[in-house]
Amino acid sequence: MKITDIELTPIAFRDPPLLNSVGVHEPWALRTIIQVHTDEGLTGLGETYGDSGHLERMRKVVPALLGLDVYALNAMHAAVADALGGVTGSDRHGLTGTISSGGTVDRVFSGFEVACLDIQGKHLGRPVSDLLGGAIRDRVPYSAYLFYKWAGHPGHEPDEWGEAIDPIGIVDQARALIDRYGFGSIKLKGGVFPPEQEIAAIRALREAFPAHPLRLDPNAAWSVDTSVKVAEELGGLLEYLEDPTAEIAGMAQVSERVRIPLATNMCVVSYEHLAPAVARDAIQVLLSDHHYWGGLTRSRQLAAICQTFGIGLSMHSNSHLGISLAAMTHLAAATPNLDYACDTHYPWNAADDVVLPGALSFVDGAVPVPTTPGLGVELDPDALALAHQRYLDCGLRDRDDTGYMQRFDPSYERKLPRW
Amino acid sequence: MKITDIELTPIAFRDPPLLNSVGVHEPWALRTIIQVHTDEGLTGLGETYGDSGHLERMRKVVPALLGLDVYALNAMHAAVADALGGVTGSDRHGLTGTISSGGTVDRVFSGFEVACLDIQGKHLGRPVSDLLGGAIRDRVPYSAYLFYKWAGHPGHEPDEWGEAIDPIGIVDQARALIDRYGFGSIKLKGGVFPPEQEIAAIRALREAFPAHPLRLDPNAAWSVDTSVKVAEELGGLLEYLEDPTAEIAGMAQVSERVRIPLATNMCVVSYEHLAPAVARDAIQVLLSDHHYWGGLTRSRQLAAICQTFGIGLSMHSNSHLGISLAAMTHLAAATPNLDYACDTHYPWNAADDVVLPGALSFVDGAVPVPTTPGLGVELDPDALALAHQRYLDCGLRDRDDTGYMQRFDPSYERKLPRW
Ligand SMILES: [Mg+2]
Ligand SMILES: [Mg+2]
Repeated sequence: MKITDIELTPIAFRDPPLLNSVGVHEPWALRTIIQVHTDEGLTGLGETYGDSGHLERMRKVVPALLGLDVYALNAMHAAVADALGGVTGSDRHGLTGTISSGGTVDRVFSGFEVACLDIQGKHLGRPVSDLLGGAIRDRVPYSAYLFYKWAGHPGHEPDEWGEAIDPIGIVDQARALIDRYGFGSIKLKGGVFPPEQEIAAIRALREAFPAHPLRLDPNAAWSVDTSVKVAEELGGLLEYLEDPTAEIAGMAQVSERVRIPLATNMCVVSYEHLAPAVARDAIQVLLSDHHYWGGLTRSRQLAAICQTFGIGLSMHSNSHLGISLAAMTHLAAATPNLDYACDTHYPWNAADDVVLPGALSFVDGAVPVPTTPGLGVELDPDALALAHQRYLDCGLRDRDDTGYMQRFDPSYERKLPRW
Repeated sequence: MKITDIELTPIAFRDPPLLNSVGVHEPWALRTIIQVHTDEGLTGLGETYGDSGHLERMRKVVPALLGLDVYALNAMHAAVADALGGVTGSDRHGLTGTISSGGTVDRVFSGFEVACLDIQGKHLGRPVSDLLGGAIRDRVPYSAYLFYKWAGHPGHEPDEWGEAIDPIGIVDQARALIDRYGFGSIKLKGGVFPPEQEIAAIRALREAFPAHPLRLDPNAAWSVDTSVKVAEELGGLLEYLEDPTAEIAGMAQVSERVRIPLATNMCVVSYEHLAPAVARDAIQVLLSDHHYWGGLTRSRQLAAICQTFGIGLSMHSNSHLGISLAAMTHLAAATPNLDYACDTHYPWNAADDVVLPGALSFVDGAVPVPTTPGLGVELDPDALALAHQRYLDCGLRDRDDTGYMQRFDPSYERKLPRW
């Protein structure tokens, strides 16, 4: 079954003013929707980053994929590598920095792979999880992903979630998310306020939710010493501490001095980081992300690596919509050693989804794994057209959390570590 | 598609008197042929070890597999682990020793997994390689697997291959195998004669076949010091030296002192060995083997681990027939980072195969990857019945190279290292 056409549709969807260690989310988040068409009439869906550099790299490899068989994933990966010819990507928002050429190949390949698995599943009449060894759970737990945030984008009405800039706001936000979605664990995006304020927020969450596992992710906002101090204060309260400081070397220094598991989606983001991270025991938990790690089958391999080297496994998220949520859910369902509830931004962005409603839902904090063929989601053509029009209209072409922050606070500096 | 019945048929086939570091092959090699039947009428084939302990463990898990879906490989692996309940296996012939409980699960699971992939492929109308990401080579190179051997089993006529107990015999055997199969690389099973004689055999092979990559595998017959000495003498002549000495600790000591890549299928034989081997840089090449490593999908994961940690990848073989050769070929075809020609005993045992002829062949030292649905091989019911009758008649229930050797040389001792 040969690939006859690939459509790449950049889209924009509303995003609240979520704060992080390098700035604040802009009013529009960008993604690219991938539609892979075949000579047998089946179409597969993928969802990936929408930044201009990534989109350009995606466009560059499309001609090399036309004519390939949808089962030829190994050949497709090689074709992507060939077409990119060693180019490297970087993210402008600064949370992972420059990506190696191998990592760039995996990032570009991922969305096409997901679309081909969607086609394979439809061809076979089986859910994508069956192509990954079969679901071993029928629901995938996600965490409540809390953010410090403004009440609304400056100059706009407050959004439905309201302001959260202190422990009370964070606890209120957690309660709202948990009331609506039933989440059984909580992650706080930190790195926004001085560590003592974020420690206070975690303590407030623990008090309000005594049984919910908690995580904190300051996105490398802290020095090694600050990381150690926070870890000592919060050790007993967190299931893991995510990226307190930058780089494998920094994480290894923290890891040596604290007992709490350290997790990352920043210092180990492609395959060449694994050997040095293992050698230095820099991390105890990896947040996998099929958008980084070359799609779903390669993410299963990553899970096997984690299992083999005694690294716990969780799942990372960026702002995303339903196609990604479906892919994440199939992957998590078919990954036995997934040790933690997955992250998702979906509650923040779901209103502008481009898939038809009904296929994905949260029940008691978990997404029931779709059992229909393929990913189990279908595009809503009107919603896609609208989202593409938003992309054309909004003018954003790259995520730039720092630049957006500086529009309101010209003195704001991108500075990691900040504390 | 549910598993309705599983047939396990132990078989015996003729095996020449091939010598190794713990004795000599008996006249009959044992395997188990697996037939997995489904409620949709499709049947899948697997081939695995035939030793009594393994057969008993296979039988023990069959009830736990009945009723499972053939795509539910993750659940099947868990069911095998549950049913075995932490039991450990061991091989009586002494070339790998006691296997961990995890390794035992993978060994038992493997044959069932291959059979289920065979069914999936037939269901889909696709070769098994397509279930592993697709073939990236259409032919899989194998090596000429040379053995020191007697002319025939004592008390029997010489076999067609004749005696090989010195460099001339080994070169003649290589020539016979290469003439018939076209192999482009050569492996010598050593550990039989004092190292200087085996060094002489390698030198003779290099002279007779100047362009063929060469390997030597003494199966841990040597001490660390002897290993270092041989490695120094043969360094420039071998693509790798396989298991010169026992255990990760021993291999690490050799590895530290020599420059030639060290390979293993003895000290790293299940997942828990990988971390310590990597930590000590004990090996540079892993001989994967889907019969050890939990089947084809898990072997693809193993390949990813090797790639990630800079370990070269080759493939190990035990005495086997066509179902295993087909499975090995699909796996190798779909494994981009397979760096070396695979090992196979097939030329020594092919005459008694239980699959219908025609699907598998050697062309210029490589097996063309079957492109028909599933594994691409079909059972010959008459050949299977005959092979099972041989099993019943021959009386062997466990491989025992040492005991067989001692029947002809009562003074023979199992001794590793011997030199
Ligand atoms: Mg993170
Ligand atoms: Mg060996």
